[in-house]
Amino acid sequence: MTIKQYISLFFTCWILNAACAQKEYTINFQKIKLTFNLNTEGTPVYQVTYGSKDIIQPSSLGFKLVDHTPLNNAFEIVGVDSSIFDEIWKPVLGEVSKIRNHYKQLLVHLKQKRTGYLLDIAFRVFNDGVGFRYQFPKQNNLKYFIVADEETQFNLAGDHKAFWIPGDYDSNEYEYTESKLSEVDSRSIVASSTDICVRTVKDFSSVQTPLMMKTADGLYINIHEAAQINYPAMQLHVDKNTNQLSSSLVPDAVGNKAYLHAPFNTPWRTIIVSDKATDILASKMILNLNEPSVIKNTSWIKSMKFVGVWWEMQTGKGGWNYANHADSLNAKGQLVPNGRHSATTANVKRYIDFAAANKIQGVLVEGWNVGWEDWFGTWKEQVFDFVTPYPDFNVKELQNYAAKKGVQIIMHNETASSATAYDRSMDTAFKFMKKFGYKSVKTGYVGKVVPRGEFHDGQWMNNHYLRVAKKAVDYQIMVDAHEPVRPTGLNRTYPNWVASEAGRGNEYFAFSHGNPVNHETILPFTRLMGGAMDYTPGIFKLNHYAAADTTRRLRSTLCKQLALYVTLYSPLQMAADLPENYEAHKDAFKFISDVPTDWDDTKILEAEPGDYVAIARKGKGTNNWFIGAITGENSREINVDLSFLDKNKKYAAVVYADAPGTDYLNNQEGYVIKKINLTRESTLTLNLGKGGGAAVSIIQL
Amino acid sequence: MTIKQYISLFFTCWILNAACAQKEYTINFQKIKLTFNLNTEGTPVYQVTYGSKDIIQPSSLGFKLVDHTPLNNAFEIVGVDSSIFDEIWKPVLGEVSKIRNHYKQLLVHLKQKRTGYLLDIAFRVFNDGVGFRYQFPKQNNLKYFIVADEETQFNLAGDHKAFWIPGDYDSNEYEYTESKLSEVDSRSIVASSTDICVRTVKDFSSVQTPLMMKTADGLYINIHEAAQINYPAMQLHVDKNTNQLSSSLVPDAVGNKAYLHAPFNTPWRTIIVSDKATDILASKMILNLNEPSVIKNTSWIKSMKFVGVWWEMQTGKGGWNYANHADSLNAKGQLVPNGRHSATTANVKRYIDFAAANKIQGVLVEGWNVGWEDWFGTWKEQVFDFVTPYPDFNVKELQNYAAKKGVQIIMHNETASSATAYDRSMDTAFKFMKKFGYKSVKTGYVGKVVPRGEFHDGQWMNNHYLRVAKKAVDYQIMVDAHEPVRPTGLNRTYPNWVASEAGRGNEYFAFSHGNPVNHETILPFTRLMGGAMDYTPGIFKLNHYAAADTTRRLRSTLCKQLALYVTLYSPLQMAADLPENYEAHKDAFKFISDVPTDWDDTKILEAEPGDYVAIARKGKGTNNWFIGAITGENSREINVDLSFLDKNKKYAAVVYADAPGTDYLNNQEGYVIKKINLTRESTLTLNLGKGGGAAVSIIQL
Repeated sequence: MTIKQYISLFFTCWILNAACAQKEYTINFQKIKLTFNLNTEGTPVYQVTYGSKDIIQPSSLGFKLVDHTPLNNAFEIVGVDSSIFDEIWKPVLGEVSKIRNHYKQLLVHLKQKRTGYLLDIAFRVFNDGVGFRYQFPKQNNLKYFIVADEETQFNLAGDHKAFWIPGDYDSNEYEYTESKLSEVDSRSIVASSTDICVRTVKDFSSVQTPLMMKTADGLYINIHEAAQINYPAMQLHVDKNTNQLSSSLVPDAVGNKAYLHAPFNTPWRTIIVSDKATDILASKMILNLNEPSVIKNTSWIKSMKFVGVWWEMQTGKGGWNYANHADSLNAKGQLVPNGRHSATTANVKRYIDFAAANKIQGVLVEGWNVGWEDWFGTWKEQVFDFVTPYPDFNVKELQNYAAKKGVQIIMHNETASSATAYDRSMDTAFKFMKKFGYKSVKTGYVGKVVPRGEFHDGQWMNNHYLRVAKKAVDYQIMVDAHEPVRPTGLNRTYPNWVASEAGRGNEYFAFSHGNPVNHETILPFTRLMGGAMDYTPGIFKLNHYAAADTTRRLRSTLCKQLALYVTLYSPLQMAADLPENYEAHKDAFKFISDVPTDWDDTKILEAEPGDYVAIARKGKGTNNWFIGAITGENSREINVDLSFLDKNKKYAAVVYADAPGTDYLNNQEGYVIKKINLTRESTLTLNLGKGGGAAVSIIQL
Repeated sequence: MTIKQYISLFFTCWILNAACAQKEYTINFQKIKLTFNLNTEGTPVYQVTYGSKDIIQPSSLGFKLVDHTPLNNAFEIVGVDSSIFDEIWKPVLGEVSKIRNHYKQLLVHLKQKRTGYLLDIAFRVFNDGVGFRYQFPKQNNLKYFIVADEETQFNLAGDHKAFWIPGDYDSNEYEYTESKLSEVDSRSIVASSTDICVRTVKDFSSVQTPLMMKTADGLYINIHEAAQINYPAMQLHVDKNTNQLSSSLVPDAVGNKAYLHAPFNTPWRTIIVSDKATDILASKMILNLNEPSVIKNTSWIKSMKFVGVWWEMQTGKGGWNYANHADSLNAKGQLVPNGRHSATTANVKRYIDFAAANKIQGVLVEGWNVGWEDWFGTWKEQVFDFVTPYPDFNVKELQNYAAKKGVQIIMHNETASSATAYDRSMDTAFKFMKKFGYKSVKTGYVGKVVPRGEFHDGQWMNNHYLRVAKKAVDYQIMVDAHEPVRPTGLNRTYPNWVASEAGRGNEYFAFSHGNPVNHETILPFTRLMGGAMDYTPGIFKLNHYAAADTTRRLRSTLCKQLALYVTLYSPLQMAADLPENYEAHKDAFKFISDVPTDWDDTKILEAEPGDYVAIARKGKGTNNWFIGAITGENSREINVDLSFLDKNKKYAAVVYADAPGTDYLNNQEGYVIKKINLTRESTLTLNLGKGGGAAVSIIQL
């Protein structure tokens, strides 16, 4: 049920003369003020302030088009609409059960004098920021057109501190750099990121969004986009001399940016701002700027935790491939098994047993299908067929076994980035899933894209990812996409696209040097602003896990791994470690067993990008709360304000905390579990070691 | 049934020392001699002679690869196999009922010294030429690799006269230029060919194959390729100073040529040579170099003639589109008909009636499906859905009507070159065809290719065309591809791919300035060397047919249009003109009604590229012969040697000849029909006006 209010506030200047074109239009919403005008060249200009502080100084808007007059000047305003919108809607899965979508909209109708081209710009001002987008109305002179460049500026008021990753067209799996904007230079980062298989950076002064910034006077600013549909990802070019960010769209194979057909709306460009970092994490602006769900019956879309035949592959205990080489064949032409294949019927049953015994709903199985002997690095188009299991993986037997145990197996479709081949195979793949009881699929896009010349974050691939999600709706299948473009809140519209990787996950600790100790304190402010991340937390064996390099260790304590189930939101959460490592810490694993994946409410207790995050969430349909708190390189004491608990209710809490002397370098797996009773008046102090964490379950009595 | 002989002749030098690597290997087959050796750099070199005359002087072979050592020198010969092959096979559809495949093969096994890379080169020497290909054996050091360039040379013995079209990556719809090789320069041709919608020529000194040449001493040489699978089309760069042709492969979106996986065989490079032009047309070498049919049951593959709701669109009497514009909508959002839509139920019934009354098996209907208002020129990806008819086209009613009349409707799937979209829609499209009784589809690839950056003749698109043909096999559907890569004899392997356009057809007379008067005398030596062409002959109204320009006229007489049914081989032959124009010449149309589309035998009576072609063919399963004779700008008298007729048999012939004074400029539609009785001893003289023709049916009594 939604409450809708749509009030037309004023309706002026519907036909304006030249003098009127100089007029300024302003919208205020609490501390946020948005101003729009045309400058003397007839270029659209906007600015944003927060209280008395400039957030975006006058910044121009527009486009360059292929074979058309540029849409960046000579405009006149031919109309302006203003309205207020206020509704409450319910996400299918989410951090909260109800979301208020409350904004004031300014819709400016522009006409270019020479060409007659029409361009609308819509601004939506919320209490926590501004979203704006370009809207091409249906018109006679501009029907189909090609975007050569989007020329959106974000002229910042200072040389802010930023948390950024390089403007890579193909990968977002980078460590974040914390630096002033004037120091953005990704050349050495890109060159040294040899653990990322495909890197395509053409502009070493560009960064990806969500871009998190902090001003010298303590404002937090986040720039991203919302509802990115049929359009490339927006990256930001940093002009180090002027503090100007400008949109830099990911190109296609021939250098064009987007093929459009009016009427068309671009994605929203989003600017979230607050003097409190916690407000950034609490913002629902990006979700609100997406359209409501297109799926009528969403009863089949369910959150879950899962274990997986995966970490043992990543760490080298086993492998995806059944044979060592594609040409390791016996006399009958059959693959000769290497004895290291992880996705065997017996091993999968072991995971199913563990899941069933521990309130884990799913088991992901990678490497079940033929093709892993030579799937990578050759840019070939036909890699997997998505339906042929290895001889030691019995699809039917496992379907029955999992069903009997009340566990579902999660399908894995690695496309090797051959999106054309996956497009052609999707119906076959999804029919196979329906036949054998799979309800969700993890897709993968490792490697260079086919169509060759296209990039992971360009318009063509973005359309592909969404095509997969839409096709999955036809089969009532949930999607968890790995290596796609970073999300922009589309899970509101397509709630079956429950999660994505699209960032540097825990897996880098398995096959590479891992992530910085403060990585997970930055992710909520960057990657997760657009949607849930399949980060794969829950590693209990924090060192000596990698066969290839025994010096590898997670920059984490065991309790931090628990806390991530709360601090890194995802309706699809993996308990990524091996069953045997969980069996060794059954008392700690209880938190993972207990923690929900869908929530009625969320309180951001405290947060500072790069330093710490603490969040409390209320389990869906319960009166139980779960707290996760993590810290970066510094130890931290947190006094939790329990005022979110109900008055006059008593709660039994279990506190999972770093043991004294435990931090990410020492005694990493040390923890203390304390059971205490709480009320909202209680004091709860959590002590986190360096790179540590704490997790608390609070169950109403 | 085939007769197979496979004899290993000799087996020498299996392991050779360095001295042996200098050895020459020679194969002779009648007048053809092929020589192979390694030069002092270890580069493979071949040469071809015809009797005492050099055809190909020593020419090197090899590759440049991406990120690998070039495969063009430092080779040693590690083995040589020789064999003879001789079989007779039966094409499913064809110009003859039996084809002898008789060749001597030299298979050279090479190893590159530094890298250990293995490369085999197979030469097949026939009585009418040489085919050779590269074969990459399965090997450990070279598995997946990318071809940067194929460096095949054809060093000609002189500055031959050539019939060529520009080396365009996207189109083969050019007029032929007759010039010396040293005069090849396509710059002005490309610039002026504004009637070709997509032109992509990067090298104005390159030409397409089949390249027909004639030497100063009267030898005819044709260079093309056979069995082009999973590889780009080969064009030929002309070095005007040295008479050297070198392979120039059509690139992909990023400039690479081919993504390969050993074991892999390239297409065959073919050199057909004779001192008689008729031998070139009679050659079956290209078909022989293709693999046998992969389709076991071919009973559903049938040749046919068809009329079509098409020429009236091309000439402007009607149109493809139902409405004038995509946004010509009424209040209900429905398209507003423009009243000029040709593919209406009533009009299609008119064509069905005409077909049924005139022994025509099929009716092609274009413009039946929604999307034609804005299908072209925008490089959009989603154009047609291939299943939604316009409101005035009743699929079910027409299915029943056609079935009742014993006529089949031919499906039209214009992809607008959005191959990715067609790949995704193909199952849906083909299921629709099966449901509504369509047995064949004309596909179209007008416009710029999607995946963007790919070209019509590159590896990716070539794989697409074949994917369509293969998928069509699953549905028992025959394919006639328009605007694809030019054929290379693949109809032997995939006989349901019955024809292609892939050249400049009769249609250019409808919407443009047409084709040169000798165009059809060149086509058999060029475009048709690789396979059947859907040229759409049979235009009876030879001027005043084009609504847009009443000065347009075919450079043809009416009888030449009849003769094309014999001279331009295709199992799918259109009677392209309007029923009303045929009704005006019912006596002449009888030849089209009578002429077969599948043949037991073929005699090339006389031929000279650019001047004339006369061919006699024996109808499949009959003892009836049909003669077609055409001439270029000169009038011509032909005395037909009837010795192909059976001894002691009598025949009733009908001769369709240009009327006295008729030529392509005067009284074009004038003809004389004579009925005569013939035996093999008879004399038959045909008089062709300038740009004219003659057609003869010879029915055994």
